[in-house]
Amino acid sequence: MKAAVLEALNNELKITEREKPVPGSGEVLVRLTAAAINHRDLFIQQGKYAGIALPCILGSDGVGLVEDIGPNVGVGLIGQRVLINPSLDWGEHEAFQSRKFRVLGMPDDGTFAQYICIAADNVFQAPAHLSDEEAAALPLAGLTAYRALFRKGGFKRGERVFITGIGGGVALMALQFALAVDAQVCVSSASARKIEKAVSLGANGGVLYTNSEWHKKLLNNFGHFDLSIDGTGGDLFARLLEIAAPGGRIVNYGGTAGPVNQLSPQRLFWKQLVIKGSTMGNAEDFKNMLAFVSEHAIRPVIDSLFPLEDINQAFKRMHEAQHFGKIVLRISE
Amino acid sequence: MKAAVLEALNNELKITEREKPVPGSGEVLVRLTAAAINHRDLFIQQGKYAGIALPCILGSDGVGLVEDIGPNVGVGLIGQRVLINPSLDWGEHEAFQSRKFRVLGMPDDGTFAQYICIAADNVFQAPAHLSDEEAAALPLAGLTAYRALFRKGGFKRGERVFITGIGGGVALMALQFALAVDAQVCVSSASARKIEKAVSLGANGGVLYTNSEWHKKLLNNFGHFDLSIDGTGGDLFARLLEIAAPGGRIVNYGGTAGPVNQLSPQRLFWKQLVIKGSTMGNAEDFKNMLAFVSEHAIRPVIDSLFPLEDINQAFKRMHEAQHFGKIVLRISE
Repeated sequence: MKAAVLEALNNELKITEREKPVPGSGEVLVRLTAAAINHRDLFIQQGKYAGIALPCILGSDGVGLVEDIGPNVGVGLIGQRVLINPSLDWGEHEAFQSRKFRVLGMPDDGTFAQYICIAADNVFQAPAHLSDEEAAALPLAGLTAYRALFRKGGFKRGERVFITGIGGGVALMALQFALAVDAQVCVSSASARKIEKAVSLGANGGVLYTNSEWHKKLLNNFGHFDLSIDGTGGDLFARLLEIAAPGGRIVNYGGTAGPVNQLSPQRLFWKQLVIKGSTMGNAEDFKNMLAFVSEHAIRPVIDSLFPLEDINQAFKRMHEAQHFGKIVLRISE
Repeated sequence: MKAAVLEALNNELKITEREKPVPGSGEVLVRLTAAAINHRDLFIQQGKYAGIALPCILGSDGVGLVEDIGPNVGVGLIGQRVLINPSLDWGEHEAFQSRKFRVLGMPDDGTFAQYICIAADNVFQAPAHLSDEEAAALPLAGLTAYRALFRKGGFKRGERVFITGIGGGVALMALQFALAVDAQVCVSSASARKIEKAVSLGANGGVLYTNSEWHKKLLNNFGHFDLSIDGTGGDLFARLLEIAAPGGRIVNYGGTAGPVNQLSPQRLFWKQLVIKGSTMGNAEDFKNMLAFVSEHAIRPVIDSLFPLEDINQAFKRMHEAQHFGKIVLRISE
């Protein structure tokens, strides 16, 4: 089978011929038809995580057809169009992942390949209203956004939500999810074009965080927020406490902008705010996310499509950060 | 009646003759027998809050006998020994206080006096096992600690708890509450003597936060913590994320050490931590706190006793920060 393999840090991925894997006990063999890129893949390529084991087939998001099953798997799965939950070995606790937890795609071989073997517990019927390319855009970003917004953020219909860094996969998915349940949503970005796009999707407004007074503009134009969803941290994070309503919640799922500084304990305790960290989600979150996407007929925003063979162009597009929505790979037989 | 009045910022309190107040509709007149000092009183004297209105009788904590009632109050209250809940006009939301919320003692006349008129809804029978002096030590610190530990912190029997700045009223009360339900508790302080005292009360250990490696020492000796209770913020706060167990909670109720810096979003989201701000508590928290104190026969630690007339000596003792436990005032007829 063809696979996109990262052989060494800071190298391009290499389209390589690999042996088609054989499903073990409890596993299914999925013939992948589409995959999607996440920042995680780029960060692995750039060596930004500890303990990277190479060579590895990268990729956390994938959709395809179950072609074969290993022992102890129901035959009913054969021929199903499935979406892969990239949370591996989450463990028993709802509130946090176990020590064995991994995200699919390094160290385990991922979805940038024609085939993958994966635990049957990790495959779910793909929402019927979505094309393979749309479905492939869903897993990691959809799961992270769903848990951040609903399970951790406790988002309720009609609340006011602020989402930072719109354009990123999780942020955009959080926007679509929140809009589906009648939220008032504002967004931030460094790009006026991305804010415009978010507004065209239904956001009530947005602010350029490159403007040092963005939080004041937000407060003046929109008032306080019940919930913020943030994937960056950094020096802007402290402002999220200023724009929070009393009893407001702030959920963080990423730290691309580095450590948080100048966070005011007085704002935290006097407004009785809640700050929660969230990462990925468990199988129940994944199932609930898919049900939510089906119920509200949500279609993930796709930025661009590349054939698997052009994966390095797809990585380049993500690296340049001009994308709005998911960058999806088509995988042909 | 005699009352300790703050007439101007940075001045001593003045023992003044004031008119005995008359209970209005829904109010009771309490003849106070004991009161207690909080940092809040000192901060008001030092002008550390916005909107200080003087002259004012300070004091949030008080116990006494109901001597008279206003219209629309049941006669059954007359003669009762009551403790005053210093949360005024909390409002309808459990999660946060209303805009009308005030802490008793500035702008409303407080408990450093022979008499006070207060809403009947704010008086509760004092726990029978406590002397007046012990009961007076309870309200503000007990309420804040109870809400931080149980309602916000979700503390469960047997969990591992870290409490910063032991010796302060809230921290000490949190220690006593946690120990009453079989927690393993560690504490921090700048004073070895205060740590020793905490250990003699039942704490499992403590660290001097003046040692820059305190968090490593804590991890080595005791492992990770399910819950931290912090009243300081500042540069030590980020360490609380390091010593937190996955899914751990950190509750902050004060910010004497200033803004929080170098807080790692990666730790926050990967461990799926929860940081909550908490302040005081509502009437239900107060009632639950008193029931808890009665059930577990908890006796607040009293540092020292002063007659109301010597209130400026009592303030001096708090200012010097050598106290361990509450500084209590005796109020005689």
